[in-house]
Amino acid sequence: MPQRELVVLGTASQAPTRERNHNGYVLRWDDELILFDPGEGTQRQMLLAGVAAPKLTRVCITHFHGDHCLGLPGVLQRRSLDRATRPLEVHFPASGAAYYERLRHAAIAADRSPVVARPAEPGTVVTTATFRLEAAALAHRVDTLGWRLVEPDGRRMLPERLAALGIAGPDVGRLQRDGAITIAGRRVTVEEVSAPRRGQRFAFVMDTALCDAAFALADGADLLVCEATFLSVDEDLAREYGHLTAAQAARIAAEAGARRLGLTHFSQRYPDPAAFLAEAKAVFDDVVVANDLDRIDVPGRDPEPVP
Amino acid sequence: MPQRELVVLGTASQAPTRERNHNGYVLRWDDELILFDPGEGTQRQMLLAGVAAPKLTRVCITHFHGDHCLGLPGVLQRRSLDRATRPLEVHFPASGAAYYERLRHAAIAADRSPVVARPAEPGTVVTTATFRLEAAALAHRVDTLGWRLVEPDGRRMLPERLAALGIAGPDVGRLQRDGAITIAGRRVTVEEVSAPRRGQRFAFVMDTALCDAAFALADGADLLVCEATFLSVDEDLAREYGHLTAAQAARIAAEAGARRLGLTHFSQRYPDPAAFLAEAKAVFDDVVVANDLDRIDVPGRDPEPVP
Repeated sequence: MPQRELVVLGTASQAPTRERNHNGYVLRWDDELILFDPGEGTQRQMLLAGVAAPKLTRVCITHFHGDHCLGLPGVLQRRSLDRATRPLEVHFPASGAAYYERLRHAAIAADRSPVVARPAEPGTVVTTATFRLEAAALAHRVDTLGWRLVEPDGRRMLPERLAALGIAGPDVGRLQRDGAITIAGRRVTVEEVSAPRRGQRFAFVMDTALCDAAFALADGADLLVCEATFLSVDEDLAREYGHLTAAQAARIAAEAGARRLGLTHFSQRYPDPAAFLAEAKAVFDDVVVANDLDRIDVPGRDPEPVP
Repeated sequence: MPQRELVVLGTASQAPTRERNHNGYVLRWDDELILFDPGEGTQRQMLLAGVAAPKLTRVCITHFHGDHCLGLPGVLQRRSLDRATRPLEVHFPASGAAYYERLRHAAIAADRSPVVARPAEPGTVVTTATFRLEAAALAHRVDTLGWRLVEPDGRRMLPERLAALGIAGPDVGRLQRDGAITIAGRRVTVEEVSAPRRGQRFAFVMDTALCDAAFALADGADLLVCEATFLSVDEDLAREYGHLTAAQAARIAAEAGARRLGLTHFSQRYPDPAAFLAEAKAVFDDVVVANDLDRIDVPGRDPEPVP
């Protein structure tokens, strides 16, 4: 199983359909399991997708419209029932704290599992060993934050160079840690035996009209998950309600240099999801129309050419 | 389609399963459509069952554990989205008003459809043209109200007697309204040309340990919907957590003179629902193990023998 993938739980917009539950997306990123926008029914969709609630590490909520947050109480109760011990950090737009508190205490529950509220403002929200979590204000009808994870750039060791210089075993770790090592009287720097490795990026953009923040979040994203509520034929409606068309989502992906685009949050007015694909494909190549219970890989960074 | 039936939306207890959503039951009773215990996912289950949210007239909540109420916000938002005009009355245990308010305003929503909060105490809660809605305090870990609908007893006109006395057309209505009519110089009372007709009853009993109120609610119910979280083998657990076994539910039905028993709210610990049926059938005859999206008729009252 890949270490970094998106598990799609639900792909409807405000009204669910027979085929599409309300929103819900779980990003598996090394030892973190991050739930984005838990709409109603997320608890059961997690069961269907084989995602264990106690293993969640964070929740990121874009905004407090029901289809993006009403599943939070069920997820918290399920973690309590399962006596999850690892604290769950819940990130949400700070201006929506009253809604967070209502959802946090929406029903009578034992509350046996730790939950940490993290009201967020635009900017870097948290920095871990493997990513920075950043938020940016989108252009919706209510305060909305888009999210992205940015892995720091690093270096990839080149085995053939290490071998040529006789560096092996614990010396490799020492070289990485100290930046240089002296072998057989010669000083070898880490730059000599490694190549730059760009960090991976994941971006989550919904709900929003076209805006600069959407492009900024998508910048260089290996996987951009983006709402595409409407088709271009209804671009006026999209603007009026603060949403994107499939073509606009693809334009964001293309102009921001994203590598893969996952479309979701479809209006029930369109019976055939193939129309979203066709519209986006005309603008951007690697498009996935997300369906419930899909798994979408975060594309790996191929080794870059050694200078 | 029968005028009085139960549409089953979900039948799980605290944890949903692949086959069973959280609770949710819609009673179709003449021109009323009453939603009992909307657990998470009720909005989508209604879609799957073909129940239109704008047509709901009431919600009855037994208690504020999540599996019995977390679907309320989604149902209210759906009605607002659909611009439902008929006010929705929401009945719930008065002591849980704070939870009701949180659920009522759990997310940012347009709130275009009228909702009327009806905090309830045990006793008669409302009287309409076709039923009394009554609540009784059950024995659970938190304040819980069981519910029942009681149609007033009435009389059923006997066509052959009316014909024999030459009473027809508008005279029938006049006789029913006034209790007597004079035809060809003879005074005829309604009792002469009709037989007693017992009103129908529907009872909804969950969550509770065995208690007097459960028997009182079930008294003479044509359809008793009753929780059966456990099997008898776990009767101690049932008592500890304030729940019933299938055998206890059947005992309530039998001793209260109910006509049909619908079992639901099953613990996920039992893989085979046939065990609930077998256990209840040993005590009571007309048992239905409810499954999601089932429809259960409220048995009609056969004409009683004419005295």
